[in-house]
Amino acid sequence: MIRRLAILGVGLMGGSLALALKRTGLVETVVGAGRGRDNLELALKAGVIDAIAATPAQAAQGADVIVLAVPVGGMPGLMDQIAPQLHDRVVLTDVGSTKQDVVAAARTLLPAHLARFVPGHPIAGAETSGVGAAHADLYRGKDVILTPLPESDPAAVEQVRAMWAGCGAHVERMSAEEHDRVFAAVSHLPHLAAFALMDELAGRENSQQFFRHAGSGFRDFTRIAGSHPEMWRDVALANRAAVVAELDAYIDRLGRIRDLISAADRVALMDVLSRASHARQQWAQGKKRTGS
Amino acid sequence: MIRRLAILGVGLMGGSLALALKRTGLVETVVGAGRGRDNLELALKAGVIDAIAATPAQAAQGADVIVLAVPVGGMPGLMDQIAPQLHDRVVLTDVGSTKQDVVAAARTLLPAHLARFVPGHPIAGAETSGVGAAHADLYRGKDVILTPLPESDPAAVEQVRAMWAGCGAHVERMSAEEHDRVFAAVSHLPHLAAFALMDELAGRENSQQFFRHAGSGFRDFTRIAGSHPEMWRDVALANRAAVVAELDAYIDRLGRIRDLISAADRVALMDVLSRASHARQQWAQGKKRTGS
Repeated sequence: MIRRLAILGVGLMGGSLALALKRTGLVETVVGAGRGRDNLELALKAGVIDAIAATPAQAAQGADVIVLAVPVGGMPGLMDQIAPQLHDRVVLTDVGSTKQDVVAAARTLLPAHLARFVPGHPIAGAETSGVGAAHADLYRGKDVILTPLPESDPAAVEQVRAMWAGCGAHVERMSAEEHDRVFAAVSHLPHLAAFALMDELAGRENSQQFFRHAGSGFRDFTRIAGSHPEMWRDVALANRAAVVAELDAYIDRLGRIRDLISAADRVALMDVLSRASHARQQWAQGKKRTGS
Repeated sequence: MIRRLAILGVGLMGGSLALALKRTGLVETVVGAGRGRDNLELALKAGVIDAIAATPAQAAQGADVIVLAVPVGGMPGLMDQIAPQLHDRVVLTDVGSTKQDVVAAARTLLPAHLARFVPGHPIAGAETSGVGAAHADLYRGKDVILTPLPESDPAAVEQVRAMWAGCGAHVERMSAEEHDRVFAAVSHLPHLAAFALMDELAGRENSQQFFRHAGSGFRDFTRIAGSHPEMWRDVALANRAAVVAELDAYIDRLGRIRDLISAADRVALMDVLSRASHARQQWAQGKKRTGS
């Protein structure tokens, strides 16, 4: 049971966490802080939060658990603001899409609280945003990755784990390095590749001729290119080394396929497409089986 | 009204065309031919076709309209088989995903019938295949592109146009060159890019670690990588020049994004992602408005 929960950044992610914890009775009072006053009023009216704090520092005062729920580019500023207000027993966590940069910021800005900081990343869609889209089931059946530090207090890790488990999520641990490497490949790269296709076509003089004939394959391939540009700029830069390595590997693979087509190498091209198609079908079947 | 329609290749595309024309009473008798005997029996039993011909040549005999409904790699072989059986007034069309290669094959193999050959490409999903997936509404509201030849007989073009319009499709004309250039960008390239990501990850020793954490963004981006490898090998090779040009442009664009991330150029990266995100949202709104 969390007596007082502070959500810093009451959007889709933070708002849905508050709603899920309230429904299961795992929290007594939720205090919210954030940049948009209208958004906070909406959150209060909808019962997502119980009180609005004037500043993140004020929300942090007296909180048992603090959740940093802003895009990763905003984490250092937030840590800097709340640092002076933290008492010794507070547990801190975050919902950032990258982890090594958030850990590095915490090492610099919250050095006295590292044992009580448990970095986290809930893997839940964010095509919609804002507290208006928040709902208590957002995390049900979803993965939440925790990346505890070597100095993390086991009790703090357990408290954050129990919080997410209470929302119906599967909680898993890995190192921040492993997290960033894995998500560079399966999330950050596809987003950038979808942005790249839209940018390539949008930049052409006759772009409307192309867009007019784009069908359902194009629609699904580019769906994530409609995502929030600031968020993905922050993610790409925060996870720069892994993202650049993944882009290099992908560009290399595309170049090899290009060369097979250019050389009309039917056999080798068929090998590549068959392996890819088989892997995609296996993956989809696995997802269906595990219900994730 | 088509008295006798020959469908050569009774799969999703050809089968759905037969069903749609039967429902609207635009066809009297449908004769099917193809490689899979079981598939043809199923088509007959389901009322998709009224008779099975032993060979494409036999199906072509006495037909008023012949539809070539096989993957583009199979078109030349089919044309070669039916050429000796064609009478002067028969109208020919096809459903191939590429058009310049089909036109080139017709110029070589059906030189006496060019005025009556109207190349076509219905833009309808093909993630499922086989006549079992065929249904009368597949083409309703979808685009069908016709690419008539300079020597096409206007009456033949009108007959093919009316056939597709009778299935509820929007019929549009363009040159075979323009068709292949446009679809290289909005269809062939996204397919190859999705295959490339699956192949890249599947080839890694620890591929399961990546696949296990892939979520909904990855799912949509890679959906078309589950498509038929033979079909897409054929398409890539049939439209080789345009596909290679599109891959080069895409690789170049990805390389530029890679360089912006590597240089941590926040402003230029934000410009690219914003333009892409805006273009994707505009595109989706346009699609919603036109209902396509």
